[in-house]
Amino acid sequence: MKIGSQAHTTSAISAANATTIVVRGRDLAADLMGSVSFTDYFWLLLTGEKPGPAQRRMLDATLVAIAEHGLVPSVQASRMTLAAAPEALQGAVAAGILGCGSVVLGSAEAAGRFYAEIAQRTGAGASQEEAATAVVREYRAAKRAIPGYGHPMHKGADPRALRLFEIAAEAGSSGAYIAIARLVEKLLPTLVGKPLSLNVSGAIPAVLLDVGFPLGALKGIPILARTAGLIAHLLEEQQRPIGFVMSHAAAAAIGYDGKAPDGFEPSHE
Amino acid sequence: MKIGSQAHTTSAISAANATTIVVRGRDLAADLMGSVSFTDYFWLLLTGEKPGPAQRRMLDATLVAIAEHGLVPSVQASRMTLAAAPEALQGAVAAGILGCGSVVLGSAEAAGRFYAEIAQRTGAGASQEEAATAVVREYRAAKRAIPGYGHPMHKGADPRALRLFEIAAEAGSSGAYIAIARLVEKLLPTLVGKPLSLNVSGAIPAVLLDVGFPLGALKGIPILARTAGLIAHLLEEQQRPIGFVMSHAAAAAIGYDGKAPDGFEPSHE
Amino acid sequence: MKIGSQAHTTSAISAANATTIVVRGRDLAADLMGSVSFTDYFWLLLTGEKPGPAQRRMLDATLVAIAEHGLVPSVQASRMTLAAAPEALQGAVAAGILGCGSVVLGSAEAAGRFYAEIAQRTGAGASQEEAATAVVREYRAAKRAIPGYGHPMHKGADPRALRLFEIAAEAGSSGAYIAIARLVEKLLPTLVGKPLSLNVSGAIPAVLLDVGFPLGALKGIPILARTAGLIAHLLEEQQRPIGFVMSHAAAAAIGYDGKAPDGFEPSHE
Amino acid sequence: MKIGSQAHTTSAISAANATTIVVRGRDLAADLMGSVSFTDYFWLLLTGEKPGPAQRRMLDATLVAIAEHGLVPSVQASRMTLAAAPEALQGAVAAGILGCGSVVLGSAEAAGRFYAEIAQRTGAGASQEEAATAVVREYRAAKRAIPGYGHPMHKGADPRALRLFEIAAEAGSSGAYIAIARLVEKLLPTLVGKPLSLNVSGAIPAVLLDVGFPLGALKGIPILARTAGLIAHLLEEQQRPIGFVMSHAAAAAIGYDGKAPDGFEPSHE
Repeated sequence: MKIGSQAHTTSAISAANATTIVVRGRDLAADLMGSVSFTDYFWLLLTGEKPGPAQRRMLDATLVAIAEHGLVPSVQASRMTLAAAPEALQGAVAAGILGCGSVVLGSAEAAGRFYAEIAQRTGAGASQEEAATAVVREYRAAKRAIPGYGHPMHKGADPRALRLFEIAAEAGSSGAYIAIARLVEKLLPTLVGKPLSLNVSGAIPAVLLDVGFPLGALKGIPILARTAGLIAHLLEEQQRPIGFVMSHAAAAAIGYDGKAPDGFEPSHE
Repeated sequence: MKIGSQAHTTSAISAANATTIVVRGRDLAADLMGSVSFTDYFWLLLTGEKPGPAQRRMLDATLVAIAEHGLVPSVQASRMTLAAAPEALQGAVAAGILGCGSVVLGSAEAAGRFYAEIAQRTGAGASQEEAATAVVREYRAAKRAIPGYGHPMHKGADPRALRLFEIAAEAGSSGAYIAIARLVEKLLPTLVGKPLSLNVSGAIPAVLLDVGFPLGALKGIPILARTAGLIAHLLEEQQRPIGFVMSHAAAAAIGYDGKAPDGFEPSHE
Repeated sequence: MKIGSQAHTTSAISAANATTIVVRGRDLAADLMGSVSFTDYFWLLLTGEKPGPAQRRMLDATLVAIAEHGLVPSVQASRMTLAAAPEALQGAVAAGILGCGSVVLGSAEAAGRFYAEIAQRTGAGASQEEAATAVVREYRAAKRAIPGYGHPMHKGADPRALRLFEIAAEAGSSGAYIAIARLVEKLLPTLVGKPLSLNVSGAIPAVLLDVGFPLGALKGIPILARTAGLIAHLLEEQQRPIGFVMSHAAAAAIGYDGKAPDGFEPSHE
Repeated sequence: MKIGSQAHTTSAISAANATTIVVRGRDLAADLMGSVSFTDYFWLLLTGEKPGPAQRRMLDATLVAIAEHGLVPSVQASRMTLAAAPEALQGAVAAGILGCGSVVLGSAEAAGRFYAEIAQRTGAGASQEEAATAVVREYRAAKRAIPGYGHPMHKGADPRALRLFEIAAEAGSSGAYIAIARLVEKLLPTLVGKPLSLNVSGAIPAVLLDVGFPLGALKGIPILARTAGLIAHLLEEQQRPIGFVMSHAAAAAIGYDGKAPDGFEPSHE
């Protein structure tokens, strides 16, 4: 994308005048508020259409799956930020969201692109297994991690991934992407030399792409979901602050190995 | 709050081990995923309890009300940030959330605190009208804006505020806070010299405090809701970029009135 | 400030055309690059004028004083964010800057406003001591902390505050604001019941306001300075990552005291 | 990088006790404050050593070169954020920094990695021209932009790039990286089919890598520099607000092309 060469000058999401706010073609106050859930509205905002039952069910399930997992780094960053800057809750939320990156929570999008690449190659003379094998090998050759597999705590299996696949089966929406996600899990011991279980960030794109969720919005799932979790943590931080306690413990875990003037003794107070 | 003097060393939101993730006392995979909506889960995260029907309805209605209102400053900031830094969608969302401040979207919280002050003083020898009059006068004396009233576009009435009160009536949850919000609207022409209609940021805390939503999480409503809207805008920005087009128009609207070397002619290209 | 009612349509900082970039009236490439230091340029950007010797000396001294103090909360938030999102160094810097708030680093601005209030009242029939006593009492009555005094680690005296006052004396720029800062330190044992030493966030505004630094940019001192420190920490985080180690230690310091299903044992792995 | 597998538990940047703060082995108050400039201190923070004359001169020149260029997208995002959230200057700065991404300002780092790749291949049987040609061709084959060349406004030549090379010549520090940057500029018409002048984001890594600046901190140059520019803009925004004026102009430039209820007319008020 080159600066200055953009040809678009319109947006199709929302417009308003003094009495009416239109979102995706509908009157917000008259036709949406009180009629649709926040989950339905999120789908409508993204796609222009209300979700069907399986789409709603999988969107709710993925948002619930990824919203909260205790005092992870982004929650810590957020609570420490509120402790330091209580005047700006929005800043503490932003600090937490900034940790939805390629290593931790943003890997849902990377896994989606990985599956999409395998899906695209399947059929054109290649079986799903041949396509998956080729893509995994290319990732390995480029020293890229296979996104969506393995978890530092849930080593045997990620209970959220298993449950998401169950819900998709109940909803009747298991399709090509879930099949690819499972196939890769089966192939990994041979291709990378050790078993790695599908994690929640691998299951989310599989179940959502199977119901038509847009690939380019996949990173929005952990971001929106974690925002809900962060707000709960920031309410608790106001009531029972632990931001500075966590910070002291974190600092105490790290030693200083740089130079120092003679006789200097560092303190962690 | 003084750094280092925090007495708390626990959190009550979530814990996990290799096979189970517990959130607010419930097994996430077994008891929440597939059973509760994202809206219900947000309420549970905040309060530790699942919402009742009126609570769910008002939480959905407020989130839908405030999620999207076109190309407002925070959406522009977010889309411009994605245009400049497409590698980090989380950064573009964060840039948008940082605009949920005291002037624009964060005023929902300020209005909640304003109503809570009036509610607290009502009863102890003061009628609701006396309490409201006193609090409005104190805000005016301190040159503080009355939060929750007036809107640059929806001057006659904010259709979202009207609709939120209708939904509360349908849900049977209209209570003291809605009464206070309406009373203040009635008193404002006398107290501040001009009529100002209740806006959406005034209606949100009124309907939510009436169903027991925690005061300290009110700012989380516009933040969570706008995150959904921002993600939709960022998906559109990927597909039909307008970030730099908006930036050029914004720059062209502002002249340069500083000094310059002789003969220098500024350009807006 | 009401949305839509802004009367300004110009900026006086910078303009450009195809061959020339003008900043504060000067040709950037021809007259500034290679001629002025970054410190001088920061002063010029803020004020439109190049600094004199005392102004340069105090600006350098304050930026050096506050740029770095080890693994404080904002540095931890920043390094954890880079560990989670290594693709966006700008996001990790932003997460750190968001912690320059009213409690931790932003108090330099609050202290500046506190001194300015005392300065303004001095003279109009009130001695400096009477003005200082009145303002401190008003802060106490409003339950506001006195900004710029006391430090959790440097309890006896903050070595940076002492040194800033020495440098101001060397530069011949000690004036009314340093006098006020010292006077308040002397009065505090009587007014608040315990001695509290001036800290670096109290000394910074005193020495800078005495050389004409703009009050509204005081918060920019810790923000710009810490950005330099954060970049150094983020370079080290790339080379010797500790973000997740700190996060594990922080999480391990906090217990879970919410409900849980029977037999559940939390893990900190 | 896998979560949980980090082996490092030390930092070498800073340590402190009640009376002394040590940074990079030196006593901050006694040996650095009042003695070193902010530019020198930034170099020391990054590398552990004070800069030599050419290092200081090039670091100052690059920071001055990139700090400010008018109402660019990140400045607009920052000023709009302050208008919406005046309580949190740190949030407005963060919103601006988040726009230092791969497309706009962060390209200094991408250009540095591009030159480093060419430098690494030069010598091992390949001339500089052969290495440059090969790397450019690989970028083109992978559909990656060549970072550091071309500018939407400064089409003929970027005056900052030319001046940085002049200053390097004056400082006697022109080396292999400047040679590579120039060589690529010469080769581009042949390799990509059109002439593209070196821009400031291409010149910054060339002059800094030639004086030993660390590759992994290159993105810190635009980030630190722009922070200074942003603070100046945010001071002006407090005094002469234009955030909402820019936002109105930006919104007015974009039409709505989605569906709407019959008879609806959008407004841009």
